[in-house]
Amino acid sequence: MDGLMMDYPLTISKILFRARQVFSDKEVVSVLPSGQKHRYTYGDLYTRVCKLINVLRGLGVKPGDRVGTFAWNHHRHLELYYALPCMGAVLHTLNIRLSAEQLSYIVNHAEDTHIFVDASLVKALEPLAKGLPTVRQYIVMTEDGQLPETTLAPLAEYEALLAQASSLADFPDLPEHTASGLCYTSGTTGNPKGVLYSHRSIYLHTLMGMTTDCLGISERDVVLPVVPMFHANAWGQPYLAAMTGCKMVFAGSNLAPDALVALIQSEHVTYAFGVPTIWNALLQYLRQKQPSLGELKRMVVGGSAVPRAMIVAFKKEFGVDIIQGWGMTEMAPLGSTGRLKRKMEDWSEERQFDVLAKAGIIAPAVEMKVVDTAGKEQPWDGKSAGELLVRGPAIVKGYYRNPEATAAQITPDGWFRTGDVATLDGDGYVHISDRTKDLIKSGGEWISSVAMENAIMACAGVLEAAVVARPDPKWDERPVAFVVRQPGSAKPLAGDVIAHLSGQFAKWQLPLPEDVRFVEQIPRTSVGKFDKKVLRGQMKSA
Amino acid sequence: MDGLMMDYPLTISKILFRARQVFSDKEVVSVLPSGQKHRYTYGDLYTRVCKLINVLRGLGVKPGDRVGTFAWNHHRHLELYYALPCMGAVLHTLNIRLSAEQLSYIVNHAEDTHIFVDASLVKALEPLAKGLPTVRQYIVMTEDGQLPETTLAPLAEYEALLAQASSLADFPDLPEHTASGLCYTSGTTGNPKGVLYSHRSIYLHTLMGMTTDCLGISERDVVLPVVPMFHANAWGQPYLAAMTGCKMVFAGSNLAPDALVALIQSEHVTYAFGVPTIWNALLQYLRQKQPSLGELKRMVVGGSAVPRAMIVAFKKEFGVDIIQGWGMTEMAPLGSTGRLKRKMEDWSEERQFDVLAKAGIIAPAVEMKVVDTAGKEQPWDGKSAGELLVRGPAIVKGYYRNPEATAAQITPDGWFRTGDVATLDGDGYVHISDRTKDLIKSGGEWISSVAMENAIMACAGVLEAAVVARPDPKWDERPVAFVVRQPGSAKPLAGDVIAHLSGQFAKWQLPLPEDVRFVEQIPRTSVGKFDKKVLRGQMKSA
Repeated sequence: MDGLMMDYPLTISKILFRARQVFSDKEVVSVLPSGQKHRYTYGDLYTRVCKLINVLRGLGVKPGDRVGTFAWNHHRHLELYYALPCMGAVLHTLNIRLSAEQLSYIVNHAEDTHIFVDASLVKALEPLAKGLPTVRQYIVMTEDGQLPETTLAPLAEYEALLAQASSLADFPDLPEHTASGLCYTSGTTGNPKGVLYSHRSIYLHTLMGMTTDCLGISERDVVLPVVPMFHANAWGQPYLAAMTGCKMVFAGSNLAPDALVALIQSEHVTYAFGVPTIWNALLQYLRQKQPSLGELKRMVVGGSAVPRAMIVAFKKEFGVDIIQGWGMTEMAPLGSTGRLKRKMEDWSEERQFDVLAKAGIIAPAVEMKVVDTAGKEQPWDGKSAGELLVRGPAIVKGYYRNPEATAAQITPDGWFRTGDVATLDGDGYVHISDRTKDLIKSGGEWISSVAMENAIMACAGVLEAAVVARPDPKWDERPVAFVVRQPGSAKPLAGDVIAHLSGQFAKWQLPLPEDVRFVEQIPRTSVGKFDKKVLRGQMKSA
Repeated sequence: MDGLMMDYPLTISKILFRARQVFSDKEVVSVLPSGQKHRYTYGDLYTRVCKLINVLRGLGVKPGDRVGTFAWNHHRHLELYYALPCMGAVLHTLNIRLSAEQLSYIVNHAEDTHIFVDASLVKALEPLAKGLPTVRQYIVMTEDGQLPETTLAPLAEYEALLAQASSLADFPDLPEHTASGLCYTSGTTGNPKGVLYSHRSIYLHTLMGMTTDCLGISERDVVLPVVPMFHANAWGQPYLAAMTGCKMVFAGSNLAPDALVALIQSEHVTYAFGVPTIWNALLQYLRQKQPSLGELKRMVVGGSAVPRAMIVAFKKEFGVDIIQGWGMTEMAPLGSTGRLKRKMEDWSEERQFDVLAKAGIIAPAVEMKVVDTAGKEQPWDGKSAGELLVRGPAIVKGYYRNPEATAAQITPDGWFRTGDVATLDGDGYVHISDRTKDLIKSGGEWISSVAMENAIMACAGVLEAAVVARPDPKWDERPVAFVVRQPGSAKPLAGDVIAHLSGQFAKWQLPLPEDVRFVEQIPRTSVGKFDKKVLRGQMKSA
């Protein structure tokens, strides 16, 4: 017997309607390439989305069409986040940091019909354009209405199209399972894989993120998603902030520490979101210049493991809470967030930091389990490691037009294989020890590269560190540490790093890396993770 | 085109699984009839729900069957909140305060197959039992395993059944639209109407309530739902608290102020939920005895309009925030909660209280509009009043086996007519001025009985006040005020009340009640609202 509750589809238009009706005077602020700021309200956003829907129809965009965006974080990108799914089309966010080959592959695999591109980014698209047969038109988003010189064709200008468009609201009724967005993950092996979100998954992810113990975002917050809108929906912020009614601040293309601090101060940012690299750079800047962080209280840091030392530094030196977030593009992306439980309130600060250094508590509407190589569920004891599997209404059941990758990552009983090695404990905390493929097998024992990196990054004078395996005839594999010293620091030396580690790692995790290499920087992937594929290549060629 | 996200049904078992895996050591505390406390953990709850599901199957309960509960708030009632829907049956909470006629009507209309009843409440059921042909068995919930003397038959004892049951977990896969619960609203006219919840509606209502600006409930909270579990799902707390991982405290049958204060202190309650009557009584007690409220920080008060004076008193005298909640059984029940927006943070305290005295900000996943008698949507200006219509995934699309009531309350385009007169403003605050049927039409103007009650309750010496209309040949209707003085107070007199009001009500809202009647108490409905039907009867007979 069915309940008698409304058949109310969970769609993205509902998020926009709420922003318009309940938070119409709240601001969306964007830093433009000129450095000037653009500001308008959610009420204005709604009006422009209505127009943009009519523009899209005029351009021939049909429900189900994939439409690319190639852009920084700003209000026009936000308008596309709503207009495309609300008219039934698919918002396809293209990662501007990918190689030309990967971008071509992705646009052709998705068969994008149109691409919306920042004026400052047209040069990056031009070399590919000839090889993108499905793209019928490029729409340039400019600040001044002036089309840049470009070979992209045919070409239109965003503001000119909007200026001519009707503002008549015409939102079709869509079933909640309708596709709303597409984002490719750039695996370290093989071709990028497409994650096709549904309206329902985005809506549920939004509610989930709004819960107090997940992100705990409130209307009283001013949010700054430094994480790019081409990276896993900017962790959901374009939808989360609007549904919650937060003032939203977009940094545009200038993510330098001084620019971020100025923005945090002037716009009264309370809550920021980004990858460790950004905050590591900010931390160095803060230590040097000691500027005020204004009203900033919390930061969600994710995308790769957050060093414990960074959490400690921000809290003790600057009074800012770092909430570690773990997730995946395939999870929309939230999986867990680092929170203390009530019983931990009177724990020592150091013990609390130990908890906060984990990936956090499983988010609501996410289920997890850890399995061994035979697929057997492991105990929730904080010790038994294995591959982390996840399940939930905002998690992929497959990749877009990619049955091989789907078969590889979805278990027969419907769980998604994350490829992460993890433990779960009796309090529902997940601790990610490594990517399965980044584990180091040495002398019959598994060494977590992430744990070793974390330990090295707590060594005085170290800015960053990455650890990868080098094949070894005797030990099977041996860890190699790539270390970046803090600017101006001549220490540590290799011996200092090894001495520092030997006090921290258990005997069975020896041998420690005797191979410590000091480098200027650690190569990163397009989404800011350490690129260990490149490091392994450097090792071989060295 | 559909998205490629998991087909993951939103069901109540997922809430229970989360409580077990993430919050297994968190406590559920119940005050027993003896005054002693029962305490166990969510881990224990899970095990007992597994057993109870097997018990239910043994009793012959089938998916879709409606099973009644006739009980106070306690852990066994909580177990039924999970076991019945998780096995596919329907939890039918019976209001223990209803008349025998209404109860008989409801049980027969629902065709309940079994009734779970507190030992202390069997006497109330006995007179009806003969007239309940569908009820095949009664299961008594006792503290000591001793069956009470009763004519209810056939009879079983809850703990004895559980003691013999297998604890094997056997949760069927249910589609999310499966019916999960049934709750009848006792309208002031006509027969009670059944609201049939689905798993999906309960799950979404749970996520919605967990958002920071709705209820803002956190794992760090200790919740005390004083609101009964037979009243609109205790406002969702049995599901909300488990999903959030809060320690949950049930007061049992003793809701006297001294008992509640003792419980708040000893169990470190931070967050309580109940109707204004309860908190009004508590307020008088607090003023008299000045006990500590321990860690209590917030209370959600709803079920009927919350007098502004009560919000002010709790905040100024005891440092407790009252969050006004508005909702309906038909809405699962949350509709709005009283919260301040960021821009109001520097407003004067009095102006903030004015905001908090409204019904609050529209909850996420709830849509509202106000329409005139012709059905035309009114502006969101805080002034244009009309009937409040609502829509959302946790709102009824009809009543159980009641096409007439369904037709009366669902509009052709799928909105639910609340029967409340309200305004909406540009900030998304809803202000309920009255029930449509309680408005007073006098001299061509509409007077809100609720606004007048609120004003009278702010008059010195007044404990409670209710205002109803009396037919009047000249004015059409005239307001009559029923006033309860605070214990021991000889004031106000009728003239004081009228003088107090004349300073507050606009000219067009005159005439003021010249008819002020002092009474010992104001009659209430089974869910604690003023019973204006009874008051009108008293007027006629006077």
